[in-house]
Amino acid sequence: MKYKVRSLMSHCGFTIVASELILTFPIVATGLCGTEMKLLGSNTRYPIILGHEGAGIVESVGEGVSTVKTGDKVITLFLPQCGECASCLNSEGNYCMQIKQSFTNLMSDGTSRFTCKGKPIYHFANTSTFSEYTVIREISVAKIDKVAPLEKVCLISCGFSTGYGAAINTAKVTPGSTCAVFGLGGVGLSVIMGCKAAGAARIIGVDINKDKFEKAKELGATECISPQDFKKPIQEVLVDMTGVGVEFCFEVIGNPEMMAAALASCHESHGVCVIVGFLKSGVQINIDGFLFLSGRTLKGSIFGGWKSRDNVTKLVSEYMAKKINLDPLITHNLNLDKINEAVELMKTGKCIRCVLIL
Amino acid sequence: MKYKVRSLMSHCGFTIVASELILTFPIVATGLCGTEMKLLGSNTRYPIILGHEGAGIVESVGEGVSTVKTGDKVITLFLPQCGECASCLNSEGNYCMQIKQSFTNLMSDGTSRFTCKGKPIYHFANTSTFSEYTVIREISVAKIDKVAPLEKVCLISCGFSTGYGAAINTAKVTPGSTCAVFGLGGVGLSVIMGCKAAGAARIIGVDINKDKFEKAKELGATECISPQDFKKPIQEVLVDMTGVGVEFCFEVIGNPEMMAAALASCHESHGVCVIVGFLKSGVQINIDGFLFLSGRTLKGSIFGGWKSRDNVTKLVSEYMAKKINLDPLITHNLNLDKINEAVELMKTGKCIRCVLIL
Repeated sequence: MKYKVRSLMSHCGFTIVASELILTFPIVATGLCGTEMKLLGSNTRYPIILGHEGAGIVESVGEGVSTVKTGDKVITLFLPQCGECASCLNSEGNYCMQIKQSFTNLMSDGTSRFTCKGKPIYHFANTSTFSEYTVIREISVAKIDKVAPLEKVCLISCGFSTGYGAAINTAKVTPGSTCAVFGLGGVGLSVIMGCKAAGAARIIGVDINKDKFEKAKELGATECISPQDFKKPIQEVLVDMTGVGVEFCFEVIGNPEMMAAALASCHESHGVCVIVGFLKSGVQINIDGFLFLSGRTLKGSIFGGWKSRDNVTKLVSEYMAKKINLDPLITHNLNLDKINEAVELMKTGKCIRCVLIL
Repeated sequence: MKYKVRSLMSHCGFTIVASELILTFPIVATGLCGTEMKLLGSNTRYPIILGHEGAGIVESVGEGVSTVKTGDKVITLFLPQCGECASCLNSEGNYCMQIKQSFTNLMSDGTSRFTCKGKPIYHFANTSTFSEYTVIREISVAKIDKVAPLEKVCLISCGFSTGYGAAINTAKVTPGSTCAVFGLGGVGLSVIMGCKAAGAARIIGVDINKDKFEKAKELGATECISPQDFKKPIQEVLVDMTGVGVEFCFEVIGNPEMMAAALASCHESHGVCVIVGFLKSGVQINIDGFLFLSGRTLKGSIFGGWKSRDNVTKLVSEYMAKKINLDPLITHNLNLDKINEAVELMKTGKCIRCVLIL
């Protein structure tokens, strides 16, 4: 059954069907993630409501929605958790098959829920958070603590969890270990926080922008280096620095050459390299096969390996209990109409995370 | 202190120094492994005593050797376990750094222990088992059960352990899972035995030589396919067969294109691909980076992830207790002077494992 719930502005329409809900972002709610720009490609349909890192309040619910109700605070999940697919049912997997619906920029029935002046507006990442209101599936939200500050915890919706979980869940960083993190943006810094939380003894930050070193050290990096300060390839520098290579290495840039270098930086026996940076489909990573012979591991990671609905609620509770600190990652707050400024800050590396106020 | 222990034949000499021992292969002792041929490259020094899959009896020991004595049965370890390096000390690693000594074709003091008519003969893989006698380091042997049949358990020295352990230790195959094994030679068959022992529900053997299917099914494959019977790439065939891709995939060929295909055959969320096949240094694997985004893992494996001295003794005990069965893997026994015939059988896929009788 499909029914129109409300038309908020004279020229805009929001429709929901069963198992969907309307979410409102009343004050502050949505971060700007670097992957946003990378995801926009030839397959994206326009016009579209972008944004996927959000926290808001449930405005109304469609038929069959049972886990959240009007007034609940929730975090949006670009990676849903349907609880029924092969990934959700596997203890190691978190890549819920329902994410694929987002690749169509439509909802599961093949239509859009948004209209403007009678014409359809497309969805993005199952979330579309750059808006006063959005329509979202129940499996794409996690209910959170009623008193959680939305303008902070929205980072748990993507950037923070992606980095922090890559260290905790995907790499399973061990106490006393040596780690290296390639790329010190918001996600890379969250990886550093995860490595520190896991008890790593040495965390080496790697970036060509030295302006990022101070924050990286504040959050847990024990040292930072720029590849441009060395004549050798960065993997040789890291092997020299550690004697044997690092135990855990994270690529948080999205550069195929750096992914191969990150693997080569790992200990040849038990080194684990985690790819966190985003590569578009079709971009090849070329790796000397000999790097694997001795036992190295190369792993992908999405949303930090967290099963989203199960864990986002817990991560917000950890923030409220001051076990994790998101505040140093938020360097800018801007109004949504300044979004182009926010994009520029992101592209030039001048902000870590920009939270957009709606 | 260096001293000559014996000169066995009028024109041959064997010398040992501290922490080394002389091993004899009195009846039957050494298998022919396919990697043997691949390892022979431009860096190998000649003349050389080849062979690395051996089981024999300690003939005499040098100063400081404490864990084995004359008369002990042992298995040779191309991958030593020094117990002191970063790999040996890490619970996940088994690539003992002392293996690197073998790359020089010399012993650790930079000289050879073998002479023929006064001229040096070089070492291979720290073992050199195609010989009535060899000189080997204490860290390169594992003491085994006194009544173990050497002509069977020599397979634990390389081929069997490499495959079986890749499933058990490296992939950590789970009960009820679906596995695929690319390449049904002796090591591939051992992977199948490992998958079966770990409780896999479905084990798909993949090979272009259908003559290998019968044995694969005998050892645990639930079905076998040849890529040549399909128009689609093998990864698409496996995804079609399973609906979601296999949970564990093993490349046991040593072909970079097949390694990429094996990764793509895995479940996109939690699929684990293990590279068991040997690639020479410099050979590139080209992988679509997008395959990692959703969480796939690509791991290398050497000697099945076993810490060699700790585990070879146990594996022999398991054979003696009939928990593992090596016998179906041994299809030929030949005298050492028929080694060229054995190589031909191996190259043409007509034997699984050929055990050479000395």
